[in-house]
Amino acid sequence: MNLFGGIEAGGTKFVCMVAGGPEDIRAETRFPTTTPDETIGRAVAFFRPLLPLKAVGVASFGPVDLDQTSPTYGFITTTPKPGWANTDITGRLQADLDLPVTFDTDVNGAALSEYRWGAARGCDTVLYITIGTGIGGGCLINGRPMHGLVHPEMGHLRLPHDPKVDPFGGICPFHGDCFEGLAAGPAMRARWGQPAETLPVDHPAWELEAHYIAMALTDLVCTLSPRRIVLGGGVFNHPGLIEQVRVKVQELLNGYVQSPVILHHMGEYIVLPGLGSRAGVLGAIALAMEI
Amino acid sequence: MNLFGGIEAGGTKFVCMVAGGPEDIRAETRFPTTTPDETIGRAVAFFRPLLPLKAVGVASFGPVDLDQTSPTYGFITTTPKPGWANTDITGRLQADLDLPVTFDTDVNGAALSEYRWGAARGCDTVLYITIGTGIGGGCLINGRPMHGLVHPEMGHLRLPHDPKVDPFGGICPFHGDCFEGLAAGPAMRARWGQPAETLPVDHPAWELEAHYIAMALTDLVCTLSPRRIVLGGGVFNHPGLIEQVRVKVQELLNGYVQSPVILHHMGEYIVLPGLGSRAGVLGAIALAMEI
Repeated sequence: MNLFGGIEAGGTKFVCMVAGGPEDIRAETRFPTTTPDETIGRAVAFFRPLLPLKAVGVASFGPVDLDQTSPTYGFITTTPKPGWANTDITGRLQADLDLPVTFDTDVNGAALSEYRWGAARGCDTVLYITIGTGIGGGCLINGRPMHGLVHPEMGHLRLPHDPKVDPFGGICPFHGDCFEGLAAGPAMRARWGQPAETLPVDHPAWELEAHYIAMALTDLVCTLSPRRIVLGGGVFNHPGLIEQVRVKVQELLNGYVQSPVILHHMGEYIVLPGLGSRAGVLGAIALAMEI
Repeated sequence: MNLFGGIEAGGTKFVCMVAGGPEDIRAETRFPTTTPDETIGRAVAFFRPLLPLKAVGVASFGPVDLDQTSPTYGFITTTPKPGWANTDITGRLQADLDLPVTFDTDVNGAALSEYRWGAARGCDTVLYITIGTGIGGGCLINGRPMHGLVHPEMGHLRLPHDPKVDPFGGICPFHGDCFEGLAAGPAMRARWGQPAETLPVDHPAWELEAHYIAMALTDLVCTLSPRRIVLGGGVFNHPGLIEQVRVKVQELLNGYVQSPVILHHMGEYIVLPGLGSRAGVLGAIALAMEI
């Protein structure tokens, strides 16, 4: 049995795992994200006694450089997180562990693990969207993580925004009322003056939130034509939100996309993650398996 | 030298070609699209004396079924074009010519030919958008045409639309003011009361048109992160339009996507097609080569 290492590299914490898959987890640890030296050093110290491993995968916060022809491939690049801009996390792990390292965004990792083991099994085109402190999106096309010039920034989609219905101007420092500026957790807090998780079930905040999420998903369906959409992140802990999103996506598409799953089985099309709180680090394990 | 057949299957005309590539064109013909029997029959009659060919590619108008596990794979599906709904164009060609047939959308074909031989050489993630009578988009990811549940319908993106600036409600029968409903040729004609090609260079129509195109491209950059964007279709015959689009995309992204080509070389990022009027049928040849 081949064993793999996985690192969910988050802005707040790192989760490290050694596993052959979700049914064969051999070791796991988590620790806060401090300086790059200390944090990457702790990851290396975790893996070293567990060698040999076939490869290590890193599912990272961003922005990151995924261009294999770039001199800064495998770097965390322009992050505002103090000390982490231009960190060669991939090179450091490769050198210290003498192992191949695969590197991708946290959301591409989550899309891959949901495809391999979770809520998107059998769907080689998967869209994974997470909505929490920020909004991010990952996608597999033909079973492989989607890269390109840089990587998707689906949180920054520009959506229709009617100021008569929602006079809130949005809080994205770059774009004001983009998707993240209107619908991430901090935007909900700024619009309503209280944290999203304290808003009652019948508060109009939730219908508006479902509307923006559905609008973004409609645009993403028209662009990517995913076979399944997995929705992660804290906002979906709200009861009933995903159901409202499904209804609104169907209304917005208005019968244009003639696919039975969209026309008749929306509950199988837009789903919650299957891997729970381990989705992130299992995404890193799945990336390691892509070697 | 291997030779391939290509069919650009359009709603108005079919273009057929036998070639080894754009520098090695052996035969070419075009004829109007009438009934499926007659039109596919004429294509078969064109190819038969030119056999043997290695494969035939079809770059088709849509919607089409690209799901290889579907019983209607290779069909033109729900088109309103009389007589063409549920036409098994792929099966018919395979049976009559006894050759492998690759089948895709016209815009995926165009993306592929621009990648192989045209304005997107070396860019394995390419977005091709055409704006004319309708709006369509094709995309290569990792050098391969993007498929999924069905295929992209990028003309139906929902964009910010400020009725104070543009009170025109859009003409899409499904979505009203989606991208196609606001910005395709017929929408321009309906908004301004005259065909787009008769609007003078300094008419405000063009700045509004550039605005909607740039808004859509901004969303597509955030979703797909293409390495290059190729813009085809009649509307780009208008002098200066692509230049306006480049400026507005840069303004809308507002420095968020930290890539040198977007920050400093927009003229190399958003470009016109390199293959001119043969892009469509050469797309079909390129599809045949994917066998």
